[in-house]
Amino acid sequence: MDDNATDFSRGCAWQRGQYVPIAQASIPMTDWGFLRSDATYDVVTVWDGAFFRLDAHLDRFFASCERFRLDAGKSRAEVTDILSQCVRRAGLRSSYVEMIATRGQPAWGSRDPRQAVNQFYAFAVPFVWIANEQQRERGLDVAISPVHRIPPSSVDPRAKNYHWNDLTMGLLGALDQGAESVLLTDPAGNVVEGPGFNVFAVVDGGLVTPAEGVLEGVTRRTVIEMARSLGIPVQLRALPAAELRGAQEAFLSTSGGGVLPVTKLDGRAVARGQVGPVTRRLVQTYWDWHRDPKYSTPVEY
Amino acid sequence: MDDNATDFSRGCAWQRGQYVPIAQASIPMTDWGFLRSDATYDVVTVWDGAFFRLDAHLDRFFASCERFRLDAGKSRAEVTDILSQCVRRAGLRSSYVEMIATRGQPAWGSRDPRQAVNQFYAFAVPFVWIANEQQRERGLDVAISPVHRIPPSSVDPRAKNYHWNDLTMGLLGALDQGAESVLLTDPAGNVVEGPGFNVFAVVDGGLVTPAEGVLEGVTRRTVIEMARSLGIPVQLRALPAAELRGAQEAFLSTSGGGVLPVTKLDGRAVARGQVGPVTRRLVQTYWDWHRDPKYSTPVEY
Ligand SMILES: Cc1ncc(COP(=O)(O)O)c(C=O)c1O
Ligand SMILES: Cc1ncc(COP(=O)(O)O)c(C=O)c1O
Repeated sequence: MDDNATDFSRGCAWQRGQYVPIAQASIPMTDWGFLRSDATYDVVTVWDGAFFRLDAHLDRFFASCERFRLDAGKSRAEVTDILSQCVRRAGLRSSYVEMIATRGQPAWGSRDPRQAVNQFYAFAVPFVWIANEQQRERGLDVAISPVHRIPPSSVDPRAKNYHWNDLTMGLLGALDQGAESVLLTDPAGNVVEGPGFNVFAVVDGGLVTPAEGVLEGVTRRTVIEMARSLGIPVQLRALPAAELRGAQEAFLSTSGGGVLPVTKLDGRAVARGQVGPVTRRLVQTYWDWHRDPKYSTPVEY
Repeated sequence: MDDNATDFSRGCAWQRGQYVPIAQASIPMTDWGFLRSDATYDVVTVWDGAFFRLDAHLDRFFASCERFRLDAGKSRAEVTDILSQCVRRAGLRSSYVEMIATRGQPAWGSRDPRQAVNQFYAFAVPFVWIANEQQRERGLDVAISPVHRIPPSSVDPRAKNYHWNDLTMGLLGALDQGAESVLLTDPAGNVVEGPGFNVFAVVDGGLVTPAEGVLEGVTRRTVIEMARSLGIPVQLRALPAAELRGAQEAFLSTSGGGVLPVTKLDGRAVARGQVGPVTRRLVQTYWDWHRDPKYSTPVEY
């Protein structure tokens, strides 16, 4: 055995009944999860040794499976145990933890998805931030892309999925023009979501976030609940790109870092180009809520 | 080594510089080709010991790579050699041969696709028919689905990709209602394409096939070229579902079997519900063209 074979320090995966170092984790080349992106997944984070809102992520994962007619073949308790084991074996106090259900494959030659034996995979790796420390401090510069997010009439966006070509091509265009990330649009010119996050505008002191055509992010839900508890009004409705550009504040919501301020859109300042008071308050509350036992499930190390 | 380790009879794959039995072929769990379906591919067939239209498939594969900014890291000659080796090692005279480029992955934590080292994979397995012998003889019963094919403003359909959730969910709905396959639509009510095939209608003795929003199938191109050589007129334009239902004949085109007759749509007969003369002529010509040296590249066994 080489070093990689026992080095769990960069992460641990669960595959085919075994825990393996992340560098060795694989899926069969013939799994439709790869060959047809026929899969669903969820990402939950561990912060200071505890899962944040694990129940909400498990709810969404099992709901996604149902929408795509996938059977993870594991109970909630079994999934929870596997995720904990991955985190524990990787020795991580903060972690990015992914659970995955794939179609698997039917007998070769069959094209009937109902005949496939679905598969479950999971892994835990060190926490991934969508914005680095400097970006979180000064706010991100995000491009608004002409690429349209895959519409709900094609793929149900409420079921978390790997159909990311639109997000990836949009991101490549944004990076080329010097932006740090990207927001995709719909044919009516509304902003929708980006690679790994939902979006919010602060308008007239209240929050606006797209109602449809997006993943119902657990962080988006947390933002909505925080706003309610802080007495900040929230509207779920279409968000025209022009309205976002003219907003008092803008931010992203994601498990990859919580509430992330956006201070520039396509290189032009949002309001005065500084992280605003509503965003700051939500960032603070987001991390405070991590200490609320209601939302935290300690990892058993 | 167990038996699987040396049994190439069910197919051979190329991965990370090695040829392995298909049952052992895998991709890393962390490859964005899986985690973001950030990949392109192509499928070429081998019939009677020779590739059919290999050049057209290689052209499309490298064009797809360019559209998605993927670098297969292999020349045409190298890809050709790997595909031949896969077929040869699997000992197949007729085969379904897939070449794949994936994004790979950047350093963990980076979300910049430009920093990833792209990967190349390939495999050859026994020939896969989209319709069995009985279906080819009597024609398929295909459902027209309310699911919309992912539109070109989201994902470029000319670059062959694994974004198949729309096709898979449409197929599941079709199988449930007793149909054998499915055609997806666009928001204007035109039929577009299905899981692995393009579609043609015979109208006023000529062919109609969708111009946009579809993969430019190599078989579609072959059908168009056959029609021209047989003096059958061809129109590339939107094909309303109602026009297909009322057509003289209907058929699918795919590397998974060539020209496949459709004799029922949603359980109702197309014309008199029998394989028509234009379809029969094209099926015959398709297999005749396989003996034309212009289109065939012998595998070096
Ligand atoms: C497309 C998309 N939208 C939104 C989100 C944010 O969801 P959450 O807050 O649950 O992380 C994600 C997360 O990965 C995503 O992939
Ligand atoms: C979506 C889609 N359309 C059309 C086709 C037919 O293309 P070809 O004739 O090159 O096999 C395929 C082939 O796999 C496909 O996946």
